[in-house]
Amino acid sequence: MTGSYLAGVDIGGTKIAVSLANTSGISIRVYQNTRLEGTSTIIPEQVDFLLRYACEQRGVQPDTIMAVGVSSCGPFVKEMNRTLLVAPNLCGGLVPDRGIIPNDWTRIPLEAVLSRRWSTLTIENDAVAAAVAERLFGAGGGEDDLVYVTWSTGIGSGAYINGMLIHGKNGNAPHIGHMYLAEDGPRCGCGNFGDMESLVSGLAIARDYGGGLTAEDVFKACQNGDGKAKEIISKAIRNFARGLASINAILDTKVIVIGGSVFINNSEMLLPGIRDEFYRSFPVLSEGVDIRPSGLGSYLGDMAALSLVMPDDWIRKWQDNELWERAPPAIMLDR
Amino acid sequence: MTGSYLAGVDIGGTKIAVSLANTSGISIRVYQNTRLEGTSTIIPEQVDFLLRYACEQRGVQPDTIMAVGVSSCGPFVKEMNRTLLVAPNLCGGLVPDRGIIPNDWTRIPLEAVLSRRWSTLTIENDAVAAAVAERLFGAGGGEDDLVYVTWSTGIGSGAYINGMLIHGKNGNAPHIGHMYLAEDGPRCGCGNFGDMESLVSGLAIARDYGGGLTAEDVFKACQNGDGKAKEIISKAIRNFARGLASINAILDTKVIVIGGSVFINNSEMLLPGIRDEFYRSFPVLSEGVDIRPSGLGSYLGDMAALSLVMPDDWIRKWQDNELWERAPPAIMLDR
Repeated sequence: MTGSYLAGVDIGGTKIAVSLANTSGISIRVYQNTRLEGTSTIIPEQVDFLLRYACEQRGVQPDTIMAVGVSSCGPFVKEMNRTLLVAPNLCGGLVPDRGIIPNDWTRIPLEAVLSRRWSTLTIENDAVAAAVAERLFGAGGGEDDLVYVTWSTGIGSGAYINGMLIHGKNGNAPHIGHMYLAEDGPRCGCGNFGDMESLVSGLAIARDYGGGLTAEDVFKACQNGDGKAKEIISKAIRNFARGLASINAILDTKVIVIGGSVFINNSEMLLPGIRDEFYRSFPVLSEGVDIRPSGLGSYLGDMAALSLVMPDDWIRKWQDNELWERAPPAIMLDR
Repeated sequence: MTGSYLAGVDIGGTKIAVSLANTSGISIRVYQNTRLEGTSTIIPEQVDFLLRYACEQRGVQPDTIMAVGVSSCGPFVKEMNRTLLVAPNLCGGLVPDRGIIPNDWTRIPLEAVLSRRWSTLTIENDAVAAAVAERLFGAGGGEDDLVYVTWSTGIGSGAYINGMLIHGKNGNAPHIGHMYLAEDGPRCGCGNFGDMESLVSGLAIARDYGGGLTAEDVFKACQNGDGKAKEIISKAIRNFARGLASINAILDTKVIVIGGSVFINNSEMLLPGIRDEFYRSFPVLSEGVDIRPSGLGSYLGDMAALSLVMPDDWIRKWQDNELWERAPPAIMLDR
């Protein structure tokens, strides 16, 4: 088994990362900026290139890779039972009025292209994959009722209910960011007005402050006592917690794990307020829910993708030895 | 098998109904006003009495009842793996400031008391049980991704995802009524401000109009051209549809079935607006979702409870012959 390899692929709006792993741990991590120009097959082709590159570097025959786990930004649609990406941060054709993505794609035939060479393929939304990884290796503690929420540039989530990872008809469950939280809120990238992402995402925090500051700048300003920044962040905390209460009303969960750059970089400032507001909601539903920060931190991306395809005997070995901690530094392939 | 009987129990805030059924259909339906005075075991004792009464009327030995399905208002908690009701419309101790429920109960030991005599017992939230019945016998058409929502005095829901009826850790999934939809909305009976129930329930519609009118009066006023009633109902339609979009963001469902007295009595007025608003939300998630009215109508209460325990061979026979249509009139036991 030590000769066998799994591959993990993490597809985001800014970079695509690939890792290979065996029973000793992660052996290589490579990444590139996401290619957004050309035809709509360019991203799956880039993934294929990175997988072959990583194999070559480690002297692994591509056809000996046992399985490839793909963790990707969504949403997805299915056509002929194959997954296509309809992701507004990859497909310029979905958000023509924003004009910041240099292509006119409306969908990316991810599974159709990748499956030509990589036959054992599992594709999940990145936050769903993160839920799998946190449950197995992070803060989830193997719980059967578990929600993972990422608070980052956008808002995403993954969830188990009664031990089952939920998918829904197109694999888009649970898209927590597009639940409504306000009657007359700002416009989300998806077109909704007043959904969770439009109110609390990193982009929303930056937009609410204005003046070209990033969300991270707003958090720094808040720490330095800036009143406007404080107000924006208090409101974001309140709405984030109300979003958690809403998904808990639907899923009656036990553990909520929070990750994502906005949260992880500011967790000490955010977590107490999130808990206060969450437990203020309907006590019969909110009592007994445990809210925890992500346990995998910077390893979450690699582990999310690999967790999707990891066999049970590997999982135990990785858990016992916390093998993700020994991952090598990632290699950036763009000069 | 024709000699065998199943029992269904429907526990609501105003009445408790019991039915017995065999492979020929429902053979008896009895109900009483819900007993809300006395000790916290009075409701399960009343259920036990009604079950024994129905058996006696049909000459059935109680210990030959194959199984009892209980569809009850919630929420639930579990203690020693047994279900207790913590329902604000049964337990006066949960809502002391409202002072309208003449007891100080905070929980009702439903399963512990009932299971003394009725050993094969399945207890579900009433809207969850309704989802089972609509999927098998009503408008659900056997779909694996299905949400049932009741729009009545309160708001409730039940859901299948990928073929699994969802429960969550205490059997409270999915409590759609307690999802937030407004930042500064009215107070719900559960204590939340701005959740779906506080905005659109029958009680909310009556409260928004004021003057002692019921929700049904407000709908009539709307049909007669009353501007205030029109505005209240338009807002309720919009928020109800946004609630459906939110649960769909979480569950990525295929079919949404709507029941409940507020909806059923006014479905022609409500359904077009619900659909318009729903499909206005994030198209990638809302497209391809079918919104349908309940198919079981007035039989839903009995069928919800019975569906919980009906064996597969009965189900096929009931489906083929639409046996619920032949149910006898219900017998009211209070003078």
